[in-house]
Amino acid sequence: MRHFIIDTDTASDDAVALVMAMKHPDVQIEAITLVGGNVGIEQGLQNALYTVELCGESIPVYRGLAQPMLRPLQMAQHVHGVDGMGDIGLPLSGRTPAEGHAVPVLIDTINKFAGNITLVTLAPLTNVALALLQDPSLASKVTECIVMGGIGQGYGNITPAAEFNIWVDPEAAKIVFESGIPITMVGWDISRTYATLNQADAAQLSQVSDLGKFCMDIQKTVMEFALERTKLDGFDLPDPIAMAVALDRSVITVSKKLYVDVEIHSELCRGQTVVDHLSATGKTANVEVVLEASRERFMEMLYDAVK
Amino acid sequence: MRHFIIDTDTASDDAVALVMAMKHPDVQIEAITLVGGNVGIEQGLQNALYTVELCGESIPVYRGLAQPMLRPLQMAQHVHGVDGMGDIGLPLSGRTPAEGHAVPVLIDTINKFAGNITLVTLAPLTNVALALLQDPSLASKVTECIVMGGIGQGYGNITPAAEFNIWVDPEAAKIVFESGIPITMVGWDISRTYATLNQADAAQLSQVSDLGKFCMDIQKTVMEFALERTKLDGFDLPDPIAMAVALDRSVITVSKKLYVDVEIHSELCRGQTVVDHLSATGKTANVEVVLEASRERFMEMLYDAVK
Amino acid sequence: MRHFIIDTDTASDDAVALVMAMKHPDVQIEAITLVGGNVGIEQGLQNALYTVELCGESIPVYRGLAQPMLRPLQMAQHVHGVDGMGDIGLPLSGRTPAEGHAVPVLIDTINKFAGNITLVTLAPLTNVALALLQDPSLASKVTECIVMGGIGQGYGNITPAAEFNIWVDPEAAKIVFESGIPITMVGWDISRTYATLNQADAAQLSQVSDLGKFCMDIQKTVMEFALERTKLDGFDLPDPIAMAVALDRSVITVSKKLYVDVEIHSELCRGQTVVDHLSATGKTANVEVVLEASRERFMEMLYDAVK
Amino acid sequence: MRHFIIDTDTASDDAVALVMAMKHPDVQIEAITLVGGNVGIEQGLQNALYTVELCGESIPVYRGLAQPMLRPLQMAQHVHGVDGMGDIGLPLSGRTPAEGHAVPVLIDTINKFAGNITLVTLAPLTNVALALLQDPSLASKVTECIVMGGIGQGYGNITPAAEFNIWVDPEAAKIVFESGIPITMVGWDISRTYATLNQADAAQLSQVSDLGKFCMDIQKTVMEFALERTKLDGFDLPDPIAMAVALDRSVITVSKKLYVDVEIHSELCRGQTVVDHLSATGKTANVEVVLEASRERFMEMLYDAVK
Repeated sequence: MRHFIIDTDTASDDAVALVMAMKHPDVQIEAITLVGGNVGIEQGLQNALYTVELCGESIPVYRGLAQPMLRPLQMAQHVHGVDGMGDIGLPLSGRTPAEGHAVPVLIDTINKFAGNITLVTLAPLTNVALALLQDPSLASKVTECIVMGGIGQGYGNITPAAEFNIWVDPEAAKIVFESGIPITMVGWDISRTYATLNQADAAQLSQVSDLGKFCMDIQKTVMEFALERTKLDGFDLPDPIAMAVALDRSVITVSKKLYVDVEIHSELCRGQTVVDHLSATGKTANVEVVLEASRERFMEMLYDAVK
Repeated sequence: MRHFIIDTDTASDDAVALVMAMKHPDVQIEAITLVGGNVGIEQGLQNALYTVELCGESIPVYRGLAQPMLRPLQMAQHVHGVDGMGDIGLPLSGRTPAEGHAVPVLIDTINKFAGNITLVTLAPLTNVALALLQDPSLASKVTECIVMGGIGQGYGNITPAAEFNIWVDPEAAKIVFESGIPITMVGWDISRTYATLNQADAAQLSQVSDLGKFCMDIQKTVMEFALERTKLDGFDLPDPIAMAVALDRSVITVSKKLYVDVEIHSELCRGQTVVDHLSATGKTANVEVVLEASRERFMEMLYDAVK
Repeated sequence: MRHFIIDTDTASDDAVALVMAMKHPDVQIEAITLVGGNVGIEQGLQNALYTVELCGESIPVYRGLAQPMLRPLQMAQHVHGVDGMGDIGLPLSGRTPAEGHAVPVLIDTINKFAGNITLVTLAPLTNVALALLQDPSLASKVTECIVMGGIGQGYGNITPAAEFNIWVDPEAAKIVFESGIPITMVGWDISRTYATLNQADAAQLSQVSDLGKFCMDIQKTVMEFALERTKLDGFDLPDPIAMAVALDRSVITVSKKLYVDVEIHSELCRGQTVVDHLSATGKTANVEVVLEASRERFMEMLYDAVK
Repeated sequence: MRHFIIDTDTASDDAVALVMAMKHPDVQIEAITLVGGNVGIEQGLQNALYTVELCGESIPVYRGLAQPMLRPLQMAQHVHGVDGMGDIGLPLSGRTPAEGHAVPVLIDTINKFAGNITLVTLAPLTNVALALLQDPSLASKVTECIVMGGIGQGYGNITPAAEFNIWVDPEAAKIVFESGIPITMVGWDISRTYATLNQADAAQLSQVSDLGKFCMDIQKTVMEFALERTKLDGFDLPDPIAMAVALDRSVITVSKKLYVDVEIHSELCRGQTVVDHLSATGKTANVEVVLEASRERFMEMLYDAVK
């Protein structure tokens, strides 16, 4: 049995990723830790608690940092809806998170399961950075850290140079990327290219089960945003493809260990993951960057999760 | 009885400040928390433990962060000596810090004594920033936070624009300065002007007691550095004058509530405390900046501590 | 006879400085070059042309750059008035500048009078930077370059850290400060402390002559601004005290050769002149920084100019 | 007849681009202006003068700026050889450039041929930026400005984020990109993908003519560098493919008008051309970015030039 901790700013695609992990047979989720990101921390907590309850699970959900280390929080409600779950009228209130704070929970859980613990991050890296600062030994105790964030190749979604999760708290990202923790980075370019669903795909998945329908219904505002802004044929699922990588690495078809740094000083390039594809810096590779993935395997895993 | 927590990178002047606090009648030191700064964290722990033992106290001393949030640690051993205590041969090894980490200790202690707890920071603000990030409510629970750091008026000691403590971890300083915690800033300009002792002053204080002699002997390398580099007639005692302010605000003769920001993006101005003396920014004052102090009262307090 | 070139963004205090130079017996002004700064370039040209005409001179006035090298122009019409000359109804239009551009004029004039040419800058350093970039040999041909700009000690007028002229075009300032040109810097701190006139001073000077009255009348909006914002007892005359230094160095009472760098990357410290008072950088001094001046001598020179 | 000005830091690939332009039937090169870049300005002048002489032409070659606006010059002699021409023993000394400076030559020539003048830049944009600052009207008088520099898609050659020409003088690039001049950007990604020659290609081109042999022989050190560092199968010819675009736009197969900004504040991303592929900024497109080109057409043009 593999142990997981999932750090999330639960909105529509995070919820699908949570479903995938909860429904996976060989994975035990020890904790879900929340952070401000797509939505405010309180909304994110409710969204995660709702999703856990919907799956009939009782995984503890912990409150973490409400905002980035050094910046005001900028949310993505224009993408995910005011409630982060597509504004489709779900009852996203009134549930109670577990006692305790995400940062000590991360520290204690990783120490407890040292050597067999996978950290999956679907959000700005604020909680994770704080845990690593307080206990740098975590870096060598985590089996792997799958990061949904950044860009391996190509361009950003929130600015020309940056992806949302890293852009929101670039200082946290820099701390995590420099910590020595074994990162597999699943950038936005991967979800754009290998995890995009058009309306037909969504309709088909909705028919598999109630859970399938939930997973697609909450993408309502994302779908609208995708058509208008990112000009993709359909909406992409960044967190689910990252979770797919965490659950089964066979979804990766090409990846490479590369040196990646994070821009924190420029406003123009804020939060850019600068990937040293040609080893121009001479610095040691610190991130396994996913460069290509299997859409087939990803879709298969998505169907497995909801059937 | 007032409750204190002291966050320190214990070297020669921190040690004097610790003595002043321990010998003060109305103050109970709940915890001493260490951080990397003047010296490495292990050396700092030993220096603090030695000083506590010398004063016959049993205050718990906790290990905190070994280095700044986003920068490599740069120490000041060229100022304070390789052992940070003047390299005069003190037995600074073998003592054991308390169990637990500085960050949760700061969080728990401030919560426990909310409303009657003074935080004195004599070091880079790494520990304090992490505690405030994890529990922002600390800001309103601290009675006051006396910061030895920055520059109220004038120029820096480590660079033309910056003072050492803030320069070492500017991001931490920015977090603390923006947290809403009630800061009284005792900058390096104050110690330069009101807390400088020449050789005659040192000789006189040494004769008061063994403790007086200890406080002056450990300034050996600082004294040498001052003569060569900062061109002061004697050495200054930044942490002791900050502690004096914490113990008895009457040592302040002029102070003003001003808006202070910390530079984190420029290399040239890194760690500068930008004080808005003329309210050019229109931003709300967040720091009480000490502008003038009483050297007489400071010296009196120093003598009181060692007699 | 000494040869002068004056680079200016002519507004109220520049005009007084021009008067001082034009009325000085031993100085020949070869050219007045305009740049965008306090006011837009067209207004500045008219203001300079009017002032030259008023003094009965026929010095050529040249158009230079309308805006900073890399930033949008930010003007100071809230200080100097919409027309830059106190909005007192002067006929500031219709005059024609000389043919040719300020940059080649600076290059040609300095080359022509190499070894006996004083450059006085009363404005953002855009024109001067461009001339030095195109012909770096100018740096060693100028007898001296008196810069009204920056801060020697203390704080800024436009932001907590910066003085207006340097802040407007920090990149230009950095180029000039690094060019090797022999700079004497007369910062805003000098005008604040040694060149401030209250209403009584202004009234008295106005009675000396029509020219005296002109010099004071055009300070109307500056006077209002000073009372409200900078909280000085009266208004200060930055350009005139810099011109006084250019005309007669005896107005300087204390100065020091120091290393000065200019901040161009930070928004917070943009345009700060970082003065290395303690030689913390170990870099070679490049600027003679005026630290104290004689208010008596300055006032005397002001009276001499208008009598 | 089309009029050209070519701004260059003449090294091995610039020389080939010059040959292509000189041998083109319908193009009249009005001036070649030199700037510090691949090699120092004096070496670059000699390389350009040699190449012009070799082609039996008498185009004037002008000295421009020896170094970037705000940075020390960093050259590429490790790529192009100490003499910038492959260190194959060419007699690259003793020739005399034309009288006059590149900046006024750019200003005067563009004004003279306003409406029918193509500016081709093969180097850091220092000269061009200065000309545009002094005379902003040039931007609307140039027919088009072909820039070899930056990256349209993908990664850099000098750092992970930047291409050499833009990286060397990012401030100049930013000035040019913001000037309104109609830029067609031929980034390093284009030369990597569509203008790379392997040893067989080089051998074949060498056999066409003495000029063909010259064009390939001077790539000696570039070829060595490519094998070792950039891991291309052969060496790429950035300036020739940019010149091909200037001579005949049919070499472009895909291009798009996009907003491009240049990073000047970060060290990590210095000189990155941030291309807004998804219109994330909402800013108006200012650059036609070449995205794909025809290798066949390029090779054809190369053969035409040397036959």
